[in-house]
Amino acid sequence: MQDFKQQLDFIMELDQLKRVYRKALIKCDNNRFENSAEHSWHIALMAQVLSVYAEEKIDLSRVITMLLLHDIVEIDAGDTFAFGEHADLAEQNQKEVAAAKRIFGLLPATQSQQFLDLWLEFEDAETADARFAKSMDRVLPLLQNMQNNGGSWSQHQVRKKQVLKRNLHLQTAAPKLWKFVCEQIDIATERGWLIDA
Amino acid sequence: MQDFKQQLDFIMELDQLKRVYRKALIKCDNNRFENSAEHSWHIALMAQVLSVYAEEKIDLSRVITMLLLHDIVEIDAGDTFAFGEHADLAEQNQKEVAAAKRIFGLLPATQSQQFLDLWLEFEDAETADARFAKSMDRVLPLLQNMQNNGGSWSQHQVRKKQVLKRNLHLQTAAPKLWKFVCEQIDIATERGWLIDA
Repeated sequence: MQDFKQQLDFIMELDQLKRVYRKALIKCDNNRFENSAEHSWHIALMAQVLSVYAEEKIDLSRVITMLLLHDIVEIDAGDTFAFGEHADLAEQNQKEVAAAKRIFGLLPATQSQQFLDLWLEFEDAETADARFAKSMDRVLPLLQNMQNNGGSWSQHQVRKKQVLKRNLHLQTAAPKLWKFVCEQIDIATERGWLIDA
Repeated sequence: MQDFKQQLDFIMELDQLKRVYRKALIKCDNNRFENSAEHSWHIALMAQVLSVYAEEKIDLSRVITMLLLHDIVEIDAGDTFAFGEHADLAEQNQKEVAAAKRIFGLLPATQSQQFLDLWLEFEDAETADARFAKSMDRVLPLLQNMQNNGGSWSQHQVRKKQVLKRNLHLQTAAPKLWKFVCEQIDIATERGWLIDA
């Protein structure tokens, strides 16, 4: 039962993602910050619902597993605000790779490798599954900000072109959703939630 | 884009599950209560890791979708403590069915029916997929209580036989895990976290 002991260690380690807070606010719960565990749940279900718009052939179960595990590295490396000032992206990336090795490394070798590979595939966003998964991870904060008077965009002086660039995977992954996202970005800019530049 | 509008309404409604709190404590985050959204994330990943112990043939992607959506009814019906005093189980069940109809009903008809069917299948626990899913939902609180000096068991004077009964699906779904769970329940009883009755 050595494998089982390792699996239990991994499962209990996951609790730590519930204390990693993001920049999005949960309006219905006293405007507290959203944590990365509940965010991962939300985008996994969102992928299920929006998979009908996938333009490329995707394996939804792989997409969902990617989304469930993609933020686990934040247990060690923390959440990085998408539009923050990144003094050193390479350093952050190094931290995340080390985190992935440590945390997925808690699992027995086969599962560990499988999770690490899926995480790397998500990060690289070069397959249809990873592109669709990454799009979901990026569309939800947009929807949340639109419902929240600009939310983290307004608070952190984000530019229109940054949000367009960040959602660009959608253009290939789900063109219909990309059209919707562009419209939302225009509305946000008109309302002054995004800087028109 | 009528479908898309409905899908967006459903996706935004999901935020509400992040304010439904359970009886488990998140030790690493100031002992706050766990919410049902992050709990759902946790058991979905747990199912992925522990699926190797499934005794019956399961479709893991169905199991994971069931786990992601099984608690959504709590948005309207609230979380029911597994070992609480239930004055009226039929009334609680009625509330949950109404919630499932309202919330899954936000989606376009096909998706709505698909989610409702999966939720009902989970509730009935009469298929291998549902039995395995339900086992995961019930094993995690046991692991959490074992790590937390008995946690909600100690606080609510729970009996050994209640926990055994609650985890009984595991006997069919994953006998190796059932053996482990029985050992844990014995340890908890010896330590006085469960009442020996």
